Amino acid sequence: MSNAPILLTPGPLTTSARTRQAMLVDWGSWDQSFNELTASLCQQLLTIINGHASHHCVPLQGSGTFAVEAAIGTLVPRDGKVLVLINGAYGQRLAKICKVLGRAYSTFETAEDEPTTAADVDRLLRADSGITHVALIHCETSTGILNPLPEIAQVVANHGKRLIIDAMSSFGALPIDAAQVPFDALVAASGKCLEGVPGMGFVFTNKAALAAAEGNSHSLAMDLYDQFSYMAKTGQWRFTPPTHVVAALHEALLQYNEEGGLAARHQRYQDNCKALLDGMAAIGLRSFLPAAIQAPIIVTFHAPSDSRYQFKDFYERVKAKGFILYPGKLTQVETFRVGCIGCVGPDGMRAAVNAVAEVLREMEVLDI
Amino acid sequence: MSNAPILLTPGPLTTSARTRQAMLVDWGSWDQSFNELTASLCQQLLTIINGHASHHCVPLQGSGTFAVEAAIGTLVPRDGKVLVLINGAYGQRLAKICKVLGRAYSTFETAEDEPTTAADVDRLLRADSGITHVALIHCETSTGILNPLPEIAQVVANHGKRLIIDAMSSFGALPIDAAQVPFDALVAASGKCLEGVPGMGFVFTNKAALAAAEGNSHSLAMDLYDQFSYMAKTGQWRFTPPTHVVAALHEALLQYNEEGGLAARHQRYQDNCKALLDGMAAIGLRSFLPAAIQAPIIVTFHAPSDSRYQFKDFYERVKAKGFILYPGKLTQVETFRVGCIGCVGPDGMRAAVNAVAEVLREMEVLDI
Repeated sequence: MSNAPILLTPGPLTTSARTRQAMLVDWGSWDQSFNELTASLCQQLLTIINGHASHHCVPLQGSGTFAVEAAIGTLVPRDGKVLVLINGAYGQRLAKICKVLGRAYSTFETAEDEPTTAADVDRLLRADSGITHVALIHCETSTGILNPLPEIAQVVANHGKRLIIDAMSSFGALPIDAAQVPFDALVAASGKCLEGVPGMGFVFTNKAALAAAEGNSHSLAMDLYDQFSYMAKTGQWRFTPPTHVVAALHEALLQYNEEGGLAARHQRYQDNCKALLDGMAAIGLRSFLPAAIQAPIIVTFHAPSDSRYQFKDFYERVKAKGFILYPGKLTQVETFRVGCIGCVGPDGMRAAVNAVAEVLREMEVLDI
Repeated sequence: MSNAPILLTPGPLTTSARTRQAMLVDWGSWDQSFNELTASLCQQLLTIINGHASHHCVPLQGSGTFAVEAAIGTLVPRDGKVLVLINGAYGQRLAKICKVLGRAYSTFETAEDEPTTAADVDRLLRADSGITHVALIHCETSTGILNPLPEIAQVVANHGKRLIIDAMSSFGALPIDAAQVPFDALVAASGKCLEGVPGMGFVFTNKAALAAAEGNSHSLAMDLYDQFSYMAKTGQWRFTPPTHVVAALHEALLQYNEEGGLAARHQRYQDNCKALLDGMAAIGLRSFLPAAIQAPIIVTFHAPSDSRYQFKDFYERVKAKGFILYPGKLTQVETFRVGCIGCVGPDGMRAAVNAVAEVLREMEVLDI
């Protein structure tokens, strides 16, 4: 079991043995003990964003994308209009969700290495008074770019509009304070920076916004209003919960708090990112983003230009040395990605860099 | 760990230690090894229904209800009309899904102890030529009633209509042969008779029906056409899969086949059901359904009429003796339910009956 490769991917990622061992128990989904587990989970999650006064935490079965779709479907009225801010594949996915759900939307797209700015959003909202909601990706996993959430959130609030944040890959590692950053919904998932296993998402919804959302949803299973109302009344999930995933996330949160909460998690990922960037620079591999907009979550590297470099071969060889990397997601530039998140520290990152260096030598990739 | 109570519930249920231990590994969702796990899973599932020639297996993140909604949303065109056959809460849920999704539908409801018949369906289809699809629950978990699937499927096919089957609690234990029983979709989930853990569903879709379903879906995340197309092209799940749940289901399927496949699983659950019914009858507890329509999945019992019986107290006391029961779901009659499924045999069922008998004595419930 312990010989499994370290996942340097943006989730699923490597979890602790303790987190995985929490899945060795079968829980009754109707049982009081499991209800208490769910309630404790939601309370701990709300604490991370300082959201007890203003927000509910609504967990949802499925991957993070299910929770993002649920947030848009539940919170954007059928006659609403969403301004979608895009600088990567996950922003594109927000727009696709609006399209499939039949919600009116417009898009604003910047280059994959260019954050959206608050001034952009201010201008766009002045130009179209029909916009009711703004949706953005906090940290765009396509590249690892960080968008300036607090500034954008303030502009959106100043216009009296509502904000939906996909914080899938940042939540738990990058600070977001619900008392400072106004938003209607912030969406994340179990298998990212909290270091749980994948299988559920959760949406922090502004209490008043959720109370006004009855009947908006396009879907029964993804109706967060129904999901929350049922849970508030019964303590139970509306439909069968992924009990083992819930138990693993609960155990992961205990460890998160023991480690020192967000500040400690943030610091470890920064240390990981620095070890990775320093080590890769030393062997000549260049990161795609400038440091100022690089979140310590996942780093995109330019592929070596040497014709002896082939990603598939490179990937398999690095995997054989114990590390699973991630393919690039850019259309214009050949890249690969390395995650800084999961149950791994700077020593692990340095070992991964060493594995990469050895593999490039084995492959006789000289022109990096 | 081994002191956890046995779950006599219709899923989540008790799984084997081997199945849970399969979750001790973190898998990369993009990695070839995981793709092979998914492919093997789908092939094994298709074998159970003899569906390789006619059907695809499309796995989906989330609970079984997500997969049911996905099947209706993907396979029923926006101008289709669904006849929903109802004799319990899960049939009601099918109708609610149609309503929320904006699909036209009509309902036919029988009492909770009365199966829908093929003659009913024949009459209803003659009366309304606008119906394009029929949807039914194979084994209605509300009571444990079995609806006559092969006969109904034949009538639906004779009318040239299409069938969507929620086989959540029967698949893997009750025989269904895709070469004999015509259907467009059959839906089940990981945490039921296959004895995996909850967190994913799967839909067997007729190949031609799925090929014609592009653009039907109301949802991005629940679009089975997209889910299948992407998986066929890449070998990967479209959005982050619940990797540990997938690994557990794969391990559970290996054990399913080692046990002797469907015939052996069916026999064990029948033996469990008989041990339960015999034992409960001996202490005076009456089952709600007559034997002829009782599926060996979950049994509904009339609650004792003695005023000293309170379900909550009864439940907690039985739990303290190692067994988790399930509340009733009938509105007119006070009942409780006991599942016959999961990693448990007739000896376990007899031990559960003994626990129930002891608890009733402790509670001084005399008038049973």
